[in-house]
Amino acid sequence: MRTIDWVTARPGAAGHIRLIDQTQLPAHSAALDVDTVDDLIAAIRRLSIRGAPALGVAGAMGVALAAHRMAPEQTRAAAGAIRAARPTAVNLAVGVDRAMAAFDLGGPIGALEAALCIRDEEIDAALAMATLGADLVYELSGGKDRLTVMTICNTGALAAVEHGTALGVVEKLHQDGRLGSAIALETRPLLQGARLTAWELDRMGAHYELIVDSAAASVLAGSDVDAVLVGADRIAANGDTANKIGTFALAIAARHFDIPFLVVAPETTVDVTTAGGWDIEIEDRGPDEVCSFAGVRTAPPGAKVRNPAFDVTPAELITAVVTDRRVIMQPRDLRAAAPIGA
Amino acid sequence: MRTIDWVTARPGAAGHIRLIDQTQLPAHSAALDVDTVDDLIAAIRRLSIRGAPALGVAGAMGVALAAHRMAPEQTRAAAGAIRAARPTAVNLAVGVDRAMAAFDLGGPIGALEAALCIRDEEIDAALAMATLGADLVYELSGGKDRLTVMTICNTGALAAVEHGTALGVVEKLHQDGRLGSAIALETRPLLQGARLTAWELDRMGAHYELIVDSAAASVLAGSDVDAVLVGADRIAANGDTANKIGTFALAIAARHFDIPFLVVAPETTVDVTTAGGWDIEIEDRGPDEVCSFAGVRTAPPGAKVRNPAFDVTPAELITAVVTDRRVIMQPRDLRAAAPIGA
Repeated sequence: MRTIDWVTARPGAAGHIRLIDQTQLPAHSAALDVDTVDDLIAAIRRLSIRGAPALGVAGAMGVALAAHRMAPEQTRAAAGAIRAARPTAVNLAVGVDRAMAAFDLGGPIGALEAALCIRDEEIDAALAMATLGADLVYELSGGKDRLTVMTICNTGALAAVEHGTALGVVEKLHQDGRLGSAIALETRPLLQGARLTAWELDRMGAHYELIVDSAAASVLAGSDVDAVLVGADRIAANGDTANKIGTFALAIAARHFDIPFLVVAPETTVDVTTAGGWDIEIEDRGPDEVCSFAGVRTAPPGAKVRNPAFDVTPAELITAVVTDRRVIMQPRDLRAAAPIGA
Repeated sequence: MRTIDWVTARPGAAGHIRLIDQTQLPAHSAALDVDTVDDLIAAIRRLSIRGAPALGVAGAMGVALAAHRMAPEQTRAAAGAIRAARPTAVNLAVGVDRAMAAFDLGGPIGALEAALCIRDEEIDAALAMATLGADLVYELSGGKDRLTVMTICNTGALAAVEHGTALGVVEKLHQDGRLGSAIALETRPLLQGARLTAWELDRMGAHYELIVDSAAASVLAGSDVDAVLVGADRIAANGDTANKIGTFALAIAARHFDIPFLVVAPETTVDVTTAGGWDIEIEDRGPDEVCSFAGVRTAPPGAKVRNPAFDVTPAELITAVVTDRRVIMQPRDLRAAAPIGA
């Protein structure tokens, strides 16, 4: 399963983007063909495609889409519009910028090559992270036979390309026969944990339990959870990490119970140009996601809502950042930490 | 507005229970007439009536309902069934037991008199708690002009009789012109915060903001919140407090940010026969509330769910317990603490 890919209808044709429409899950696993920049931006905004690594690929493929259909100046404008579709995940901007640099050097074909390269790099990165992360969880547990982990949002294949980030670690533990249970937070307001992560865990055949977000603390208190694993939308130079709303609350609870809290994300999510969490723009997605569900209003008309899609977990609450190239214990300066094997 | 009351259709008639059907809010504010014990138990189970003080009144009125319609032995069996409808809130059992004791002494009229007495006592208790709680929040803030408070679930008039517990304190602050803003957690899975608390705050004309539960930590980090106010379903002798799932997480976050965490509940919710949180039965309400909404499935078929309706906040995370008779700072032994003025 690839959450996003580039498909060519016939040899010589320019091709377009095909993605799994995540708004339809878990009821339908439907492919969505995206042929225009406007459609891509709409798909990104409504979260048909989401997750930092997947957004990086989407951004780069969006530039390739534009470059094959528009004049260079229009392509540049389109790139700016795609880049601005969601502000918090750094991968979207990085993917767009890298494809635009390739476009400047090599035209539409250069942009497409960059996009396919990012796609393949994210696939490789996920496998590397899964191994590093699974080894770390096992080590931190003191070598337990059956590990119980907790995770928030969706950080699986749907959020990346073929394998996930934090959920990629869970998948690796499961494949290695070391996973006792994965506890998935449903992740309000859009329920990516219930709709997407439970679906992925189910397909893996892993034992899992779904809980409401606010139950995490009491479950951590009462269960033998070995690690909390989360993804990231942007990791600042000082280790502060922007991720799905609720991650910060989970980190505070993990610290309260002295449970390892691990951020798993590719190097492409590390943004050393952002000094700390205070510099990360947090997207507020407006009241509708909180005030209604499936067309049914759940709050009084005109309810005032604060709906930040992300929060920033300060580095001091993070036990380790695991990327595809390094494990940074007690992250404080991601510029200084040396890659494994470097 | 009374969330529950006893109504008599004509002079000399036995009367029945009338309650606001809270499952219909915020769309409809509908009265539900309850004429049989079975209907009352169903209403309690589906949360048409909920909240510890309101459940106490419902339990006692349920005994009165039975006593006016059934033989004494049937009444005793009905009381047991009502008592078992929800296990965590102590008030339900206390209300039933008190009405049964009155029934044993004074028959159906005795049971009804006890129920009406409990109703009136809860109304008075709410007013007393509101004053004690509002004074305490003001004092802990160092006498700030405009206070910002956060709350979970619904602890307003809907959960009590005419005025709330924790939300009664918010109402008092608002009436006194001291409320800057109330931040209401939506309270998954059944959204009592969004459906009920936002509705009550709106009717009060108070400034409020609704957030998803998992946003509480980041809002506490970024806002100038003066106190977190919660209700209780049962307070053990050592101060451990069972309340809506998510309360424990909120207490951990409040402690992390050094924000006062106040439990506001009537003396009838203090259960000195329960030694500590470990002795409190936590109701698990099954998977449906988490896996679907308004008939739409939000998790894959067969998803494994843990759905505890309550959690237990350890006393050491509680800044104070405020009842209608006393303010217990750093509660550790509620048997020993002397009532105010005692």
